[in-house]
Amino acid sequence: MTASDAFSLADLPIRSDLRGREPYGAPQIDVPVRLNTNENPYGPSPSLVEDLARVVRENAAGLNRYPDRDAMALRADLAAYLGHGLTAEQVWAANGSNEVIQQILQAFGGPGRCALGFEPSYSMHPILATGAATEWIAGAREEDFGIDPAKAVAAIEEHRPDVVFLTSPNNPTGTALAPETIAAIVAAAPGMVVVDEAYFEFARTGTPSALTLLPDHPRLIVTRTMSKAFAMAGTRLGYLAAHPAVIEALLLVRLPYHLSTLTQAVARTALAHRQELLGTVDRLRAERDATVDWLRGRGLKVADSDANFVLFGHFPNRRAVWEGLLERGVLIREVGPPGWLRVSIGTPEEMAAFKAALEEVL
Amino acid sequence: MTASDAFSLADLPIRSDLRGREPYGAPQIDVPVRLNTNENPYGPSPSLVEDLARVVRENAAGLNRYPDRDAMALRADLAAYLGHGLTAEQVWAANGSNEVIQQILQAFGGPGRCALGFEPSYSMHPILATGAATEWIAGAREEDFGIDPAKAVAAIEEHRPDVVFLTSPNNPTGTALAPETIAAIVAAAPGMVVVDEAYFEFARTGTPSALTLLPDHPRLIVTRTMSKAFAMAGTRLGYLAAHPAVIEALLLVRLPYHLSTLTQAVARTALAHRQELLGTVDRLRAERDATVDWLRGRGLKVADSDANFVLFGHFPNRRAVWEGLLERGVLIREVGPPGWLRVSIGTPEEMAAFKAALEEVL
Repeated sequence: MTASDAFSLADLPIRSDLRGREPYGAPQIDVPVRLNTNENPYGPSPSLVEDLARVVRENAAGLNRYPDRDAMALRADLAAYLGHGLTAEQVWAANGSNEVIQQILQAFGGPGRCALGFEPSYSMHPILATGAATEWIAGAREEDFGIDPAKAVAAIEEHRPDVVFLTSPNNPTGTALAPETIAAIVAAAPGMVVVDEAYFEFARTGTPSALTLLPDHPRLIVTRTMSKAFAMAGTRLGYLAAHPAVIEALLLVRLPYHLSTLTQAVARTALAHRQELLGTVDRLRAERDATVDWLRGRGLKVADSDANFVLFGHFPNRRAVWEGLLERGVLIREVGPPGWLRVSIGTPEEMAAFKAALEEVL
Repeated sequence: MTASDAFSLADLPIRSDLRGREPYGAPQIDVPVRLNTNENPYGPSPSLVEDLARVVRENAAGLNRYPDRDAMALRADLAAYLGHGLTAEQVWAANGSNEVIQQILQAFGGPGRCALGFEPSYSMHPILATGAATEWIAGAREEDFGIDPAKAVAAIEEHRPDVVFLTSPNNPTGTALAPETIAAIVAAAPGMVVVDEAYFEFARTGTPSALTLLPDHPRLIVTRTMSKAFAMAGTRLGYLAAHPAVIEALLLVRLPYHLSTLTQAVARTALAHRQELLGTVDRLRAERDATVDWLRGRGLKVADSDANFVLFGHFPNRRAVWEGLLERGVLIREVGPPGWLRVSIGTPEEMAAFKAALEEVL
């Protein structure tokens, strides 16, 4: 028995605003049907797997050397994918969009500064703000989970946030924002505006990206990820597009060599195979729309969705519904406003299992 | 011409303490002899390269799924490598020891808190502190780059730092700390003590690790990396050992899914090949000792080194010496106290090129 044996987290001198908090994260439970973290259910094809193994073999002999610290080749490839005339100097990448957003908050937030988001929204935004010692201000969404531009502008004028977070399509509601709403908020914001477009590729045809606003707005940042439509959640690659000066600011806080040689090489390979990887998006959108219809046909409330998940309710005891599904081998997410649940869109077989299980539970 | 064209970093609302700073990082210059970032010059063998490609092929088909958020298998392997009876619950890993240290500062530093280090030391420590909004206090080292325990304890009693950084062996001086010095500082520190052992494997035989102090000190953290002796700088894998409660604290600030599926798999494969990878350490130590002798034989001042680099001087114009070497295809690092330069230990051929170039320059 040493002095350490009776020691616990409560005995450690952690920051006072972290005391009593729980680690973020959906339960990682090994069940037959996992529809809880908005992954793309379709894995890489055998030919892409071979290509990934090949590119790793080519790069592995140099793993004793540090990676390209600025990841220029990857950033050029990401810019080419985004289009809109973007170049590598306007694109930045990190280990998941969480790290991208953390860097934004470290550069533009911090002590004495605040960030504003419109909830319910991606629950990592306030956690990332806390991690970067930035005050979080929770703005509100409307009944239909949209954002009222006039109310949003009023909230911005009241709080003068250093960073505003918009998510389009929004997680966990699936709501896309009208470009006029984003433009009004960007025009009113005194600091940086981040439009989190993690689920953009799933938006209904014709939904414009906030990338179209970049040329006129040097304080606008659009974030994306390869974890969702690109079916590369295991690779951990998030990125953003912004004015080159924004990327210069992020260089002041980024950890040097933050992106490994293999992450850079694998992400570039995935981008080269984008036709295959994004080829699943149409199927997932069709499955999503069918899921919305089916849930509504069952008499449930369902939020309009431009993403690869659907928020539905309203359940007096959502935990019981979530547990009932889990007992039947279907894992969804207990997230969002009280009474709602979120289901990620899987394969037709997975969605059939979800529907069968839900019918039994209800 | 848009409103954005004339926009520059100075126009952005970055945190005031970042204004005027330059991004961290040694120049990445493609020259024949790179001895500037303390990489291991020996790359993986063909058989390890094949094994890495195989493990990536095995994992790639599941890349559409998020990685194990807690990296338990990798942490168990790292614990087994470290020995000292450690288990996975006492080990944590991230994308390089920079991210490990950033997480420590986010959990135990932050606004109103301070961190103390003894300079000259790893120049990322104060940068990471700034990034985590933690005040940095620069303590001093002795003439021989060692730390005087009595003076260190006095500095700790004066400043009451929330986090103390020790580096053993120290970068850029190569100095290892006596275990009694570390023990005295750990006993005096009111908060956390981080012993950065990035270069530990290169220490002279018989140098004990601070891991031996862990059982009695739940506020002690020992950090390591696979970037140096393990010859895996391109993989970006840093880790630490500490009381399990410390890892619980880090879970509150870590980015979920921060370690990619491939980073976890590749690091585990490298650990399985540790005999090969660490097999270069003895060669590098012998080359280091020969380099120290050679430099001293040339009449230069050289710091005792327990690492895979050597700090030497003293030059009235070190920039001219650095540039002279670069012109001859040898890249070393202009770092450390004024008048000193640091050379990483490379292959015998690379060190011969360094010596020949230095003779010409001097």
